[in-house]
Amino acid sequence: MYKLKLDYFDFHGGRGEVPRLILSIGGIPFEDNRIPVSEWPSVRDNAPLSALPVLHVDGEAITQSNAINRFTGRLAKLYPEDALQALRCDEIMDAVEDVITKVVVTFFIADEEEKKAAREKLADGAIKTYLVYLQTLLAKNSDDFFVENRLTIADLKVFTWTRSLRAGVLDYIPDTIVETVAPRLVEHCDRIAADPGVVAWYDAH
Amino acid sequence: MYKLKLDYFDFHGGRGEVPRLILSIGGIPFEDNRIPVSEWPSVRDNAPLSALPVLHVDGEAITQSNAINRFTGRLAKLYPEDALQALRCDEIMDAVEDVITKVVVTFFIADEEEKKAAREKLADGAIKTYLVYLQTLLAKNSDDFFVENRLTIADLKVFTWTRSLRAGVLDYIPDTIVETVAPRLVEHCDRIAADPGVVAWYDAH
Repeated sequence: MYKLKLDYFDFHGGRGEVPRLILSIGGIPFEDNRIPVSEWPSVRDNAPLSALPVLHVDGEAITQSNAINRFTGRLAKLYPEDALQALRCDEIMDAVEDVITKVVVTFFIADEEEKKAAREKLADGAIKTYLVYLQTLLAKNSDDFFVENRLTIADLKVFTWTRSLRAGVLDYIPDTIVETVAPRLVEHCDRIAADPGVVAWYDAH
Repeated sequence: MYKLKLDYFDFHGGRGEVPRLILSIGGIPFEDNRIPVSEWPSVRDNAPLSALPVLHVDGEAITQSNAINRFTGRLAKLYPEDALQALRCDEIMDAVEDVITKVVVTFFIADEEEKKAAREKLADGAIKTYLVYLQTLLAKNSDDFFVENRLTIADLKVFTWTRSLRAGVLDYIPDTIVETVAPRLVEHCDRIAADPGVVAWYDAH
């Protein structure tokens, strides 16, 4: 067993939510090191590549969300062993990361009109395109889960993203966008939210 | 055995170079479908997520560079089986992908002065930071290879990037940046370039 500590912000959602869910569902002990957003400037200077989440494995600090998801997913048996299923799982996770990266860029736009324009362009462009593509992949696999007809880290990655879109956390991105563009991802989001392991995590936090 | 076809541009380097090298080194047959840049506009409309590379596995089109690298890496036995080593390998690949994504954004800046400013900012910022971080990871592992003290897909991912930086393919990014900022990555780049499998690929193309 590895000694695990996960550094991430002290809120629900975002890139750190996925490994928290994975480890919790897998029953794997870890230190859930929640960093208040107000402390971020001082934390950033010590974080490798100035980014979170960071996973400490027996004291070794490791970056990159999907790398962390995959490692914790293997420990929790939520990652496929078969090479082709793992490829499909990885494609989905990297696609979500792609579009999240495009959205994160807009956090740093200071001018409100410019931010609005960038967000509206994303809503009509990349966010729509990626939602439609993910819905197609879901339908191709089983319509219930993305890979192997069971809960995997691909479901948790998509779930945390669609959940935040539906919560309307982003100004100028309509909270109905998932429903409008990829209704099957709404059903998927609700299905994952009802998973006993997911329910247990949110009940406890 | 899967029937594999790899769609990518008809040039050396870029995101498609890594799976070409991996499959070639592993002796795994694949159709190397090289798309002339001039045909890109029509190819783009049919490519999932309008991006390359695309790997076709028994006819199923799959996107996302590092997902493709990992799958082909497993087939070629150039990807670690141990979970922690795989995590380190994944971190490196995703870090390189991160910084490549930041650079690719500048390809679409039409105004030359603006492009120059963006590239110079990257050279002094993200590119430098990532090179230094990668050099630290290399030193931490073995100084010869990034993971497991042998050639893995992490080496090939870093190699194709540092090779292109050293070739000076990007205007306003000095071709000496790797040497200046992370000299051990120059040695690493030369080491990988001298790998018999890598030499064989470039000799044949």
